[in-house]
Amino acid sequence: MDSVVESGGLFGVWNHPNANQMAYFGLHALQHRGQTSAGIVTSDGENFKSHRGYGLLNHVFSSVEKLDNLVGQSAIGQVRSATQADQADDSNIQPLLFHFNNQSISISHNGNLTEALSLRDKLENDGAVFSSNSAAELLIHLLRRAKADSFQEAFELSLKQLKGGFNFCLLTNEGLYGAVDRNGFRPLIVGQFANGAYLLASETCVLSSIGANYVTELSAGEYVVIKDEGYQIFQYAEDIQISVEPMEFIYFSRPDSDIAGVNVHAARKRMGDRLAKEHPAPTADIVIGVPNSSLSAASGYAEAHGLPYEIGLIKHQYIGRTFIQPTQALREQGVKYKLSAVESLIKDREIVLVDDSIVRGTTVKHLIKMLRDSGAKAIHLRIASPPIRFPNYYGVNTTHTSELFAANYTTAELNELFGSDSLGFLSVDGLVESIALPFVDTPNRGISLDAYTGIYPADIGDYREEFESSLTALQKNILKGECCDV
Amino acid sequence: MDSVVESGGLFGVWNHPNANQMAYFGLHALQHRGQTSAGIVTSDGENFKSHRGYGLLNHVFSSVEKLDNLVGQSAIGQVRSATQADQADDSNIQPLLFHFNNQSISISHNGNLTEALSLRDKLENDGAVFSSNSAAELLIHLLRRAKADSFQEAFELSLKQLKGGFNFCLLTNEGLYGAVDRNGFRPLIVGQFANGAYLLASETCVLSSIGANYVTELSAGEYVVIKDEGYQIFQYAEDIQISVEPMEFIYFSRPDSDIAGVNVHAARKRMGDRLAKEHPAPTADIVIGVPNSSLSAASGYAEAHGLPYEIGLIKHQYIGRTFIQPTQALREQGVKYKLSAVESLIKDREIVLVDDSIVRGTTVKHLIKMLRDSGAKAIHLRIASPPIRFPNYYGVNTTHTSELFAANYTTAELNELFGSDSLGFLSVDGLVESIALPFVDTPNRGISLDAYTGIYPADIGDYREEFESSLTALQKNILKGECCDV
Amino acid sequence: MDSVVESGGLFGVWNHPNANQMAYFGLHALQHRGQTSAGIVTSDGENFKSHRGYGLLNHVFSSVEKLDNLVGQSAIGQVRSATQADQADDSNIQPLLFHFNNQSISISHNGNLTEALSLRDKLENDGAVFSSNSAAELLIHLLRRAKADSFQEAFELSLKQLKGGFNFCLLTNEGLYGAVDRNGFRPLIVGQFANGAYLLASETCVLSSIGANYVTELSAGEYVVIKDEGYQIFQYAEDIQISVEPMEFIYFSRPDSDIAGVNVHAARKRMGDRLAKEHPAPTADIVIGVPNSSLSAASGYAEAHGLPYEIGLIKHQYIGRTFIQPTQALREQGVKYKLSAVESLIKDREIVLVDDSIVRGTTVKHLIKMLRDSGAKAIHLRIASPPIRFPNYYGVNTTHTSELFAANYTTAELNELFGSDSLGFLSVDGLVESIALPFVDTPNRGISLDAYTGIYPADIGDYREEFESSLTALQKNILKGECCDV
Amino acid sequence: MDSVVESGGLFGVWNHPNANQMAYFGLHALQHRGQTSAGIVTSDGENFKSHRGYGLLNHVFSSVEKLDNLVGQSAIGQVRSATQADQADDSNIQPLLFHFNNQSISISHNGNLTEALSLRDKLENDGAVFSSNSAAELLIHLLRRAKADSFQEAFELSLKQLKGGFNFCLLTNEGLYGAVDRNGFRPLIVGQFANGAYLLASETCVLSSIGANYVTELSAGEYVVIKDEGYQIFQYAEDIQISVEPMEFIYFSRPDSDIAGVNVHAARKRMGDRLAKEHPAPTADIVIGVPNSSLSAASGYAEAHGLPYEIGLIKHQYIGRTFIQPTQALREQGVKYKLSAVESLIKDREIVLVDDSIVRGTTVKHLIKMLRDSGAKAIHLRIASPPIRFPNYYGVNTTHTSELFAANYTTAELNELFGSDSLGFLSVDGLVESIALPFVDTPNRGISLDAYTGIYPADIGDYREEFESSLTALQKNILKGECCDV
Repeated sequence: MDSVVESGGLFGVWNHPNANQMAYFGLHALQHRGQTSAGIVTSDGENFKSHRGYGLLNHVFSSVEKLDNLVGQSAIGQVRSATQADQADDSNIQPLLFHFNNQSISISHNGNLTEALSLRDKLENDGAVFSSNSAAELLIHLLRRAKADSFQEAFELSLKQLKGGFNFCLLTNEGLYGAVDRNGFRPLIVGQFANGAYLLASETCVLSSIGANYVTELSAGEYVVIKDEGYQIFQYAEDIQISVEPMEFIYFSRPDSDIAGVNVHAARKRMGDRLAKEHPAPTADIVIGVPNSSLSAASGYAEAHGLPYEIGLIKHQYIGRTFIQPTQALREQGVKYKLSAVESLIKDREIVLVDDSIVRGTTVKHLIKMLRDSGAKAIHLRIASPPIRFPNYYGVNTTHTSELFAANYTTAELNELFGSDSLGFLSVDGLVESIALPFVDTPNRGISLDAYTGIYPADIGDYREEFESSLTALQKNILKGECCDV
Repeated sequence: MDSVVESGGLFGVWNHPNANQMAYFGLHALQHRGQTSAGIVTSDGENFKSHRGYGLLNHVFSSVEKLDNLVGQSAIGQVRSATQADQADDSNIQPLLFHFNNQSISISHNGNLTEALSLRDKLENDGAVFSSNSAAELLIHLLRRAKADSFQEAFELSLKQLKGGFNFCLLTNEGLYGAVDRNGFRPLIVGQFANGAYLLASETCVLSSIGANYVTELSAGEYVVIKDEGYQIFQYAEDIQISVEPMEFIYFSRPDSDIAGVNVHAARKRMGDRLAKEHPAPTADIVIGVPNSSLSAASGYAEAHGLPYEIGLIKHQYIGRTFIQPTQALREQGVKYKLSAVESLIKDREIVLVDDSIVRGTTVKHLIKMLRDSGAKAIHLRIASPPIRFPNYYGVNTTHTSELFAANYTTAELNELFGSDSLGFLSVDGLVESIALPFVDTPNRGISLDAYTGIYPADIGDYREEFESSLTALQKNILKGECCDV
Repeated sequence: MDSVVESGGLFGVWNHPNANQMAYFGLHALQHRGQTSAGIVTSDGENFKSHRGYGLLNHVFSSVEKLDNLVGQSAIGQVRSATQADQADDSNIQPLLFHFNNQSISISHNGNLTEALSLRDKLENDGAVFSSNSAAELLIHLLRRAKADSFQEAFELSLKQLKGGFNFCLLTNEGLYGAVDRNGFRPLIVGQFANGAYLLASETCVLSSIGANYVTELSAGEYVVIKDEGYQIFQYAEDIQISVEPMEFIYFSRPDSDIAGVNVHAARKRMGDRLAKEHPAPTADIVIGVPNSSLSAASGYAEAHGLPYEIGLIKHQYIGRTFIQPTQALREQGVKYKLSAVESLIKDREIVLVDDSIVRGTTVKHLIKMLRDSGAKAIHLRIASPPIRFPNYYGVNTTHTSELFAANYTTAELNELFGSDSLGFLSVDGLVESIALPFVDTPNRGISLDAYTGIYPADIGDYREEFESSLTALQKNILKGECCDV
Repeated sequence: MDSVVESGGLFGVWNHPNANQMAYFGLHALQHRGQTSAGIVTSDGENFKSHRGYGLLNHVFSSVEKLDNLVGQSAIGQVRSATQADQADDSNIQPLLFHFNNQSISISHNGNLTEALSLRDKLENDGAVFSSNSAAELLIHLLRRAKADSFQEAFELSLKQLKGGFNFCLLTNEGLYGAVDRNGFRPLIVGQFANGAYLLASETCVLSSIGANYVTELSAGEYVVIKDEGYQIFQYAEDIQISVEPMEFIYFSRPDSDIAGVNVHAARKRMGDRLAKEHPAPTADIVIGVPNSSLSAASGYAEAHGLPYEIGLIKHQYIGRTFIQPTQALREQGVKYKLSAVESLIKDREIVLVDDSIVRGTTVKHLIKMLRDSGAKAIHLRIASPPIRFPNYYGVNTTHTSELFAANYTTAELNELFGSDSLGFLSVDGLVESIALPFVDTPNRGISLDAYTGIYPADIGDYREEFESSLTALQKNILKGECCDV
C-alpha cells in the first residue's frame, strides 16, 4: 500500500451564518491548488453534514441543493489533487468525517508525513482499523489514543508525534483548529469577516474573494484554536526552522496571494528580472511566457531587457472533466488541445521562452518543437527557478528522483536535450533574493532549498533508505559540493 | 416572435477518415466564439448522424460514444451563443438537419439577416412551415423552392435573396458548401489537411489545433463548393463592399488567429500602442489590462510608455456550467468569483486600466470600484477601441440602442459615470490604422465602422424603422456630423 | 426514408391552474403505452413552453424545475414508443411545436396514416420543408395550406384529407383540439376535473389517477374543440365504420381502463373463460399466466376450470434505462433478467400456460423451455386471442408479414415449433363475444379483425403494393376462405 | 448517534471468470430486498476494486464501464435499504472495504446486532476509530483485535462475541466467508455454478437468474469458508435456536424463493387458504389483493371460497428515482400515483381485500377509502398474518413500538379505525402451520413469533430498557397472557 501524497487547499470557518457558502466560495478561490476532489463538512454545533466527491468544486456541487443541505454555522472544506492510485478509492476524499459515541471530528490535511508508514504500521499492529490511506486519519488515531484531559491537549500531544510537512484543519462541535508543521512549508492564514467570524485558508487570495480581512499567518510549529470567544495561537514545538516551499512562489499560488507579506506576482516578476540579468539574451526579438504561471516572470524578463512581451502561446480554455483527448494517431497528425503557438508572431523571430520550472521536462521539449514548427529563428529558454534535482518529501508531488528530469543532467546537457539554442536557470541565490522573504536571520532567508541542494530542513524519516539508494551520479556530486551550475 | 441573433463558430470537413474527431477538435478551438450550444452532424455519403445539445462542447459530448456514433467521412459542426429566449427551444440548436424524400441537408449559420422577418412572413404566407427560429432554415426554404437544375444553382439563387451578415456551412451527401455575405463581415477560411481533405472554419486558429494548413479565405460575396475532386470558389454577387466587423479584432477572435492576413494579437498590441499615443498617462506607475481580451492592448500601451505591465487583475478559472453564483446579499458582503484585484500591486499606485471596449459599461464600473477598494491612488481608464454608439444588425449581439451605454454620453460624461480619473478611447482612425487591413482602396480600409458612426455598409432592412424611431440625441448629433469625440 | 409508425399515449388539458402537473400525472398513468420518449408542451395563452426527451417520463423530467418551467394553464403531452431508426433523430419527439409569425401550434399524434408517404411526397414537391418524420407534421402542413376562414375550418378540411389510423391532440393559444380517424381504432376520451377544466386522454385509467371524471369518448370520424366556454364535438366524416383495435383489449391498455364502456380486465377474464371452454385442459394441475398482460385471462381460465391459479412466472422489476444486459455467452450459461420460473410450483406438474397473443413467437418458445427446465410434466399453451396473421397498417407496430410468426403456420405446426404439449387459440368469434362491445349492429360488433382475417376496414393506401406482393401461402388461403383454424 | 438497522440482500462469488457480472445479475435478483444503495467489491487475489453508491443497482452501475472496472475472479455485493439518517453519510454504503498494511478485507452485512452500541462503546474507549455506523465495521475491529493464529480462527472468535440477527459475507484475497446468527433469522444459501465456482446469496431466487444450482443453506450458528479447493461449513456456536423471521415469508422474499425448502408463493397461498377458513366472508362477490406481495394470499383465499379472484387494484410501474411526487394539494384533489382501483369491478360489489400485514396502517386506510370512493358495497379486510404488536430487534426495520399501529388496538378497534366492514387476521397457529417449516421439534416449528407475542428468541441486549419502558397497555396484557385475539 502506498502512502498518499497530499496537496490541495484548505478552508475553515467558524460561526458564520453562511458557513456553507463561505466554504464554497473560499474553495473556489483555492481551486488552482487541487482539481481531483472537493468536499465540505459543516456543523451546527450538534450534527455534521458532508458532501464530497471527485472532480472540480462545481462538478461536486452540481446543484445548489447539495450546498444548501450543508446546514450549520461552521465548516471545513478542501480541494485536492489526488494521485491516480488514490482516486480508485473514494474513502480518501477529504475532509474526512469521524463519528464517535461521544464526539464527531472532521479533518482535512495538506502535506506529507515522513513517518506515515512506520506510524501506521505501529498503530495497526496495535489493532487500529484505518478506513483511508490519508495521513489525516493518522492524526485521528493519535488523538483518540492520547492520554489527555482535553481535546486541545490531545491535539497538541498528537501534533508533537508528527514529522514532515503538514497543514491541518479540524472541526469539532466545540471549535475550529488549524496547525502547521515545524518548518512552515506552506502557509495557513487566519482571516476575519466583517461580522467578526474567523476563517482559516491556505492562501490570502481567498480573502478578497469572500470579503474578509487578513488577520495573521500561522508560523512554523504553531496551532490555532478558534471558538466563539475568538482565536488563540499556541506553539506546540520548539525545534522549528522556517523553510517555505519555494514552489508556492514559483508555481502553486495564485499571483494575487501574499506569503509572509510577499506578493507572489511581484516575486515572480523579480525572478524574471533577475533571470534577465543572470542570463541575458541580447539578440532576442521578443519574450514569451508559458501560460499561465510563467507570464509574470516573462514580463519581468521583457521589461529588464526592454524587449517586447508578447502573447506567443495561447492556452486553450474549456477543457472540462469530460474532454475527449486526441488519440496518439491524431496527435501525430498535429492535433493539439492545450497550447497553440501564434505563428505570425513567432515566424522568423529570435524568441526568449520563459518557463517557471522544469520537473519532467516533457512540456518544454514539446513547446520548443512547436515554436520551431512555427518558424522561430532561435529559442532562448530561460527558467525562472533553479533546476529541481532532488525529490520532495513534504507534500510536493515529486517524491521520486526518477520523476526529475534535471536529476541526471547539467544545464549544457539539458540545453541539448531540449533542443533550445541557449538555456539559463535562475540561480539559487537569485531565487532567494527575488522572493526576498523577511526572515533575514533564518538560513536561506526562510526558503527551503532541498529540491536544488539535496539538503533537507526536516528529517525525511521513512524515505531515508530510498533516498540514499537511488542517488544519481549528479546528485552525489551536488551533495559533495562538487557540482553544479546552480 | 423574435428573430434570433446568431453568433458562433462554424466548422466543416469533407472526406477525412476522422471527420467526427476533426469536427470535435476544430470546434474545441472555436469554443470562445460560443458557449451555449454545440453540435456535429456527419455524413457517410448516404446517411446523416447528428448529436447536438446545450452547453459547452465537452458537456454535449460527455462521452466518447457520443462522438463515435457520428460515423462518416464528412461533417459540419457549430458552437454557438444563443440568446436566453432562444435557449427555451432546442429546435434552434445547430447544425440543423433536414430530411427530404430525395435528399438530406445539414446547415449551420452565423450572423443576422436584416430581412429575416419579412422574408419569413412572405414564406409563411405562402404555406411554409418553419420548425425553428433560425435564419439557417430560411435558406433551406429558399433552396427547396428555387427553380433550378442543380443544387449548386439553387444555392446560388437562394444566396442572392439574402441580405445582412451571414456565414453558412452546408453539408449534403454530394458536397460541403460555404458562403459569406456581400460585406465579408466575418471570416470563413478554407484549409487543407496533410491527407488532402479540405475544411472550412470561422478562424485560422483552428488550423494549428488540428494539424491543417491555410488555403484561402472566402471574400465578400463568395461561396465555395468542396467535393472529392477539390474545392472551387464562385462569386454570387457583384455589389460587394468589404467591411470586416472590427469586434473580431477587438474582442471575439483568439489572439493567434489571422484575419485577412492580420494577426489579432498584433493588431491589439498596435491598438494599445496607438492608444498610449492618443491618450498618454504620464504620471501612471503601472499598466494593467482586463483579462483576457485586453491583455495584448495593455502590454502594447505599457511598452509604448515604458511603464511596467502588471497582472493586476486575476481572472478566476474553473467557473463551469454548474457553478453556484453568490446571492445578492453575499455580493454585497464582498463575495466575488470572476475577477480579483492584486491588492499589493494596486495599493498607493497610479494605474492605467486598459479595457478592450465598452458595451453595457457595468463591468468597468465594477472594476474601478474594486481597484479603488484595493487602494489605487488614481485610475486612468483607457479603452482600446472607439465608443460603441450604434446597434449592430449583422450578427453582433447588440441590436438595441438601449443596450449601448455610450449611446447617450460623451467621453467626459462617461469618465464621471465610471468614476475614473481620466478616460480615453482609441479614435476611429486609430482603430483603422492599428488593424491595418490590406484593403487600402476600400472605404475605411475594409473595416465596418457602423457601431461608431451610425453609417451602415449594408441596408438594415427590417430594422430601419426601429433604428430611426429610437435614435438618441447624441446619436442624432453624430449622424449630423456635429459630434462626437471619436 | 422510412415512415414512422406511431404508438403511445396522448394527454391534453385546458384551463387548469396546474396544467403541467396534470399532464405529468396524466402521462404517468399512460406510461405503459410508450416508453421511449416523453414530452409536455404548455401554453399560458400567449407563449408556449416545452420539455421533451428520450426515455421514461421520470427520466425526461429528472428534476422538478423541468416541470415547473412549463408555465401556463393549458398543456398537451405524450409518451411514445419510437422505432430504433426514429430514435436517432430527436426532432421526432412529440409533442411537436411550431411557431409561425401569426400563431403557434403544438401537436401530438398516435397511429399511422396509410397515405403518409404519398402525401409527403406531394407536399415536398410543392416546396414544403419537413423537420421531422412524424405524421403529425403532415397535419400542420395541411393546416397551413388550407384555404379556410378559421382555424377550426382549416382543421376540419385537413382531417378530411387523412387516411388510416390516427388520434390527434392540438394545442393553440385559442383552444385544445382532439380528433380520431374514421374507424375509431383507438379511444380518445374527454374528461372533466372538479374545477370544471376539461382534459383529453388515450385511456380512462388516467381519470382516477388525476381525480377527474369521465365525460365522453370520441367516436369514429369526430373531433372535439375545447375552449374556455366548454367542449363541443363535431363530425368531420360521414363514411365511418367503428373498428376498435382488439390489441387495446388484449395487450395495450391498462386493466383498469374502459373502452366503449367495456372494462379491459373484465374482457380479458372473459377471454380466459371462453378459452377454457374452447380449449379445455382437463388433466392440468395448475394455470399460470405470462406477467403482466396475461394474468387476467389466466385467472379467468383457472376459474372456468376450477383449477388453481398460480404465480408460476415472476417478472423482474427494477430494469431501468441503464440496466446492463447479459452478454450472449452469459445468457447461454443461464443468466436471465426478465422472467423467472417458480421451480417448486412447476416441477412435476401439468401446466396450463396462458399468454395473451403471439407476434414474433420468441418469448413463448423461451418460456416453454424455461418451464421444461423447471421440470414441468406437460405444458398446455393457451393463447387468449386468435393467431395474428396479417400486418397492421393503422398504428400497431406490426407492418410487415415477416414479423408475424403465425403468418406461415397452422396451429398444429405452431404447437410443434413452440414445443408445447397442446396449443389452443381463442377463436375470432370468441374474441368478439368476450369483448362484447355494445355496437351490435356494426360488423364484428365494432372490433377490427384485419390481423386475423386480412380484411381491412379502411383502405391501406401506400401499403397496398407491399401487402399484395408479400402474401404467404397461408395468408392467400385465408383470404380465399380456405383456411384456417381461427 | 443512532445504531443503523441493516436490511438488504447479500451476494458473494469465488473464482468465477465473470465475478463482476455474476454479482451484478445476482444483486439484480435481490433488488427487492433493498433499494437505497448498491455496491460490488471484487478481488483478483491481489487487489480489490469497488464501486458503490446510493440508488438502485442500475442507477449505481449507470454504465458498463463501471462494472468492467471491477476486475477479479471473486466478488461480494450488496443491495440495501438504508434509513434516512444513514443516507446522509456515504461511508455506510456496503460492502465496506478496509485496507491494512498486511491485508485487505471487504465485508457486507444484514441484520441488527443487539449489543452494537455497548460493543462499540467498549471498543471506542479502547481507542478504536470507526469510519461508519455499520455493524459490519464492528466485526472488522473484533477481527483485528482477536488473538488468533489464523484469519479463520479470528473470524470464529469474533462471531462468538456478536448477539442479535446477522448475516455476513466477507471477502479476502484468500477466501470468501459467510456467517449467520444463532437463530438463523434470515437465510444465507450456498450455490454452485456449472463451472464449479461457489456463490453465497440471501435468497434462492438468485440461482435461476444466474444459472446456478442450490447446494445448501447455512443453519443457525454456522459459517462457511469458500476457497479454491471447495467449501466447508463450521459451527461457531452451540446455543442455537432456529427462529426464521416470518416476514421473509409474508413480505420480504420473492415468491419464487424457497426458505428451508418451503416455497414462498406456496406458503402465501396456504396463508390465504387458512385465512379463508379462519375468517370467511360468505356474502362477498370478489377477492382482490394488494399488489404485489398479497396477490398469492388473495388467490389462495379466493380458491378456498370458490370466489372470483380479480385484479381490482393496479400498481403503477415506472416510478423511478426521479419521480416527481404530487403535492399535498394535488393529493387532496385526487391525484394518485401508486395504486388505482378498477372502478368497474369494484362498483356495487362486496369485496374481500387481502393484505399481507399491517405495520403503520396508513396504506390500508387509504385503500379502503379508495374502494369506497369506487362504489364498493362492503369491504371485508383480511390480513394474511397476525397483528404485529412488538418491535423487532434483529434487522426488520420496526424497532419502535410507536411505529406499530396494532400495538395499541384490538381487532375490533382496528376494524373501526380502518373503516372496513369486517376484519380478520390470520392466527399465530395459522401462520406457523401455513408456512409449515420442517423443524417440527423446534419451538413454533422454527418461526420467530416475537412480533406477535413479545417473546424474543434471543436476548435483546441494549434494547431491553427501551423495550420495557415503552410497553403499551395492550402489550402488557399480551405478555401477561390476558390478551389477545391472535
